[in-house]
Amino acid sequence: MPLLVMKFGGTSVADLDRIANAAKKVQREVERGYDVIVIVSAMAGRTNELVGWVEGTSRLYDAREYDAVVASGENVTAGLMALRLQEMGIPARSWQGWQVPINTTDQHGSARFVSIPRHNIDQKFAEGMRVAVVAGFQGIAPDGRITTLGRGGSDTTAVAFAAAFGAERCDTYTDVDGVYTTDPRISAKARKLDRIAFEEMLELASLGAKVLQTRSVELAMRFKVPLRVLSSFDETDETSGTLVCDEDQIMEAKVVTGIAYSRDEAKITLITVEDRPGISAAIFEPLAAAGVNVDMIVQNISEKNYEDHPGAVTDMTFSVPVAQVEHARRAMEAARAEGKIAYDELSVDTEVAKVSVVGIGMRSHAGVAARMFRALADENINIKVISTSEIKISVLIDRKYMELAVQALHDAFELEKA
Amino acid sequence: MPLLVMKFGGTSVADLDRIANAAKKVQREVERGYDVIVIVSAMAGRTNELVGWVEGTSRLYDAREYDAVVASGENVTAGLMALRLQEMGIPARSWQGWQVPINTTDQHGSARFVSIPRHNIDQKFAEGMRVAVVAGFQGIAPDGRITTLGRGGSDTTAVAFAAAFGAERCDTYTDVDGVYTTDPRISAKARKLDRIAFEEMLELASLGAKVLQTRSVELAMRFKVPLRVLSSFDETDETSGTLVCDEDQIMEAKVVTGIAYSRDEAKITLITVEDRPGISAAIFEPLAAAGVNVDMIVQNISEKNYEDHPGAVTDMTFSVPVAQVEHARRAMEAARAEGKIAYDELSVDTEVAKVSVVGIGMRSHAGVAARMFRALADENINIKVISTSEIKISVLIDRKYMELAVQALHDAFELEKA
Repeated sequence: MPLLVMKFGGTSVADLDRIANAAKKVQREVERGYDVIVIVSAMAGRTNELVGWVEGTSRLYDAREYDAVVASGENVTAGLMALRLQEMGIPARSWQGWQVPINTTDQHGSARFVSIPRHNIDQKFAEGMRVAVVAGFQGIAPDGRITTLGRGGSDTTAVAFAAAFGAERCDTYTDVDGVYTTDPRISAKARKLDRIAFEEMLELASLGAKVLQTRSVELAMRFKVPLRVLSSFDETDETSGTLVCDEDQIMEAKVVTGIAYSRDEAKITLITVEDRPGISAAIFEPLAAAGVNVDMIVQNISEKNYEDHPGAVTDMTFSVPVAQVEHARRAMEAARAEGKIAYDELSVDTEVAKVSVVGIGMRSHAGVAARMFRALADENINIKVISTSEIKISVLIDRKYMELAVQALHDAFELEKA
Repeated sequence: MPLLVMKFGGTSVADLDRIANAAKKVQREVERGYDVIVIVSAMAGRTNELVGWVEGTSRLYDAREYDAVVASGENVTAGLMALRLQEMGIPARSWQGWQVPINTTDQHGSARFVSIPRHNIDQKFAEGMRVAVVAGFQGIAPDGRITTLGRGGSDTTAVAFAAAFGAERCDTYTDVDGVYTTDPRISAKARKLDRIAFEEMLELASLGAKVLQTRSVELAMRFKVPLRVLSSFDETDETSGTLVCDEDQIMEAKVVTGIAYSRDEAKITLITVEDRPGISAAIFEPLAAAGVNVDMIVQNISEKNYEDHPGAVTDMTFSVPVAQVEHARRAMEAARAEGKIAYDELSVDTEVAKVSVVGIGMRSHAGVAARMFRALADENINIKVISTSEIKISVLIDRKYMELAVQALHDAFELEKA
């Protein structure tokens, strides 16, 4: 029988009514002839409650105990969903991570998949089970202890099951009805996309359009699992939502697919860095060791200081989340104190935001950058840093212009048109 | 190292403060040189919440899914307790039922222990772990699915571990500070017992003194595990609480140890039953099949009706919980309609209570019954049914006299004196 993976997030299973509603969506697919693997998150709020208890008990907690406690939230939902489906006359049972087993590494709190043997679940399908309800977000380490995959791990679980079981598609039910050209709260002209390429989704996800967890999109791209994002609160059918799929399944790609943004960015510049081979590694190794999440990196010759420094010097600029500025500053100052790097001054701008245009079409079309910069210039928005990749162009600008920039770019690339 | 089992009930781990308080009691035993196995219940209220969700999802639920959902409550507490102990510098880890593994039968919702292999936990003790925190109330069935032991199963888990690991003692921390000669809410003269024999505790537990679950006392008696009941809210030391132990560890047993009661009883009498071999079986088989919990059974010749019935006739009286009266009535009427039994009338008295005197000393002392009946007669309390066992005498009386009867008997046997 063809197989479908359906994933329900925390808000979609927040209480018994919503679980019943989700179960109806599963029923529809069973009636259409699919065997279904359902991946469930914990009921909304439960994971935070459990994490709160762990943190209230122990500040530097044992990640193995954290995992044992926190994974229980998904187990509850899995059992309730199986019961609900049984109540509707559908042969279903729940599976906890260790029962499948979902084998992972032993990196507790952020484990990675090792293998998902199909044998146990396949056997039950062969015996007439129509739905396997699997607790998301968790697995079992080689030593038999419970692991969790980190936040958003249920998305990743869903894609991993779709890959392991050769599912026709992985449907992710959430509280939005699809992926939009930009955030509808910022631009009223935002349009829901019918299809988007994996790579575009990856850029949009990591840039702040928090519909799908980045790791799950990466995994889907690697195993070519078509991924559909749709709402658990609307009536949905086989054309609802947005399909995240391989580039060649999209007939006429637009040059630009969407505008993403990230509000709470900070720009850090090391002024007049002594420029020598290995200087970049000397700067970014201590940042990585301090757990600082560096995003954009730009290096340019510091003309202003060139005259004062007869040796080769440069300025090094990078962006980090605002919350990590102090971590970054301390890491840099420590590295300078230890003589590993040399710079004149560390300047911080915590009032910036990042805006990006994303689209696989820009690979083959010149002029996207020009059109982007023109649109921003027409609004008198000053660009502070530019960074480009194959399918996106990002700029840092003053945070107060962020909404204006998103709207201007949405208009400039005519994204309201299908 | 000597080993102790410590069990904490739901009110003793109801929140993070109480878990911390319980952890201090564990710490004290570790510092005294014990390795400790801690058995924990779910945080108070959690199990009811989970059961409510299951029942709200499915009325005739799959007991395997019920178990998977409900067992999660204990898993949370086990992890939090292990974290708390680690925070105090004590090497500890949590174990879920399937990790030990606690092998049980597959009677989901009321599973029985099959085996508790020591290997995994012993190995961790050998590696320096001082405390194994085990989720109570649960186990794993032969097919790998999660089982629960039924209400009060955490007490039973504690005793089973004490037996399996040869523990010196099993300390059960609860919200009372020991076992009393009777309910202190009924008699102000109730006195806490230092020691009580297993058999006496068994009679008291099953008669309504709900401190320890009956099955756990049976198990302790069978494996001769000394069981101590004490309060998790008081300062306690090695003499606190009540020790439930083998008869021969009690130096001078009193004739009567305690007065038990059970408030919501009903008396059912089948009047003028045709008396023939097998009639008792014909009456009680349908009651058992209907799940009716029959307690006392008394049969006596029905003199009143003897003249009207030339054949042998009898009256049959038995007691059931008030809540099961209608089930019992329907079972009897159905059996009569099917011609399996014959009787003239079924009379029900739902206004009775049971009062019992319990004591191993009464085995060797005559006159306990006489003294009991005299004490009740002096208060003008009419006895409706009498039933005796080796170490207890129970009577059914009008419910309105129950408190008076308990107080009178407590006085008559001078239980206020140590």
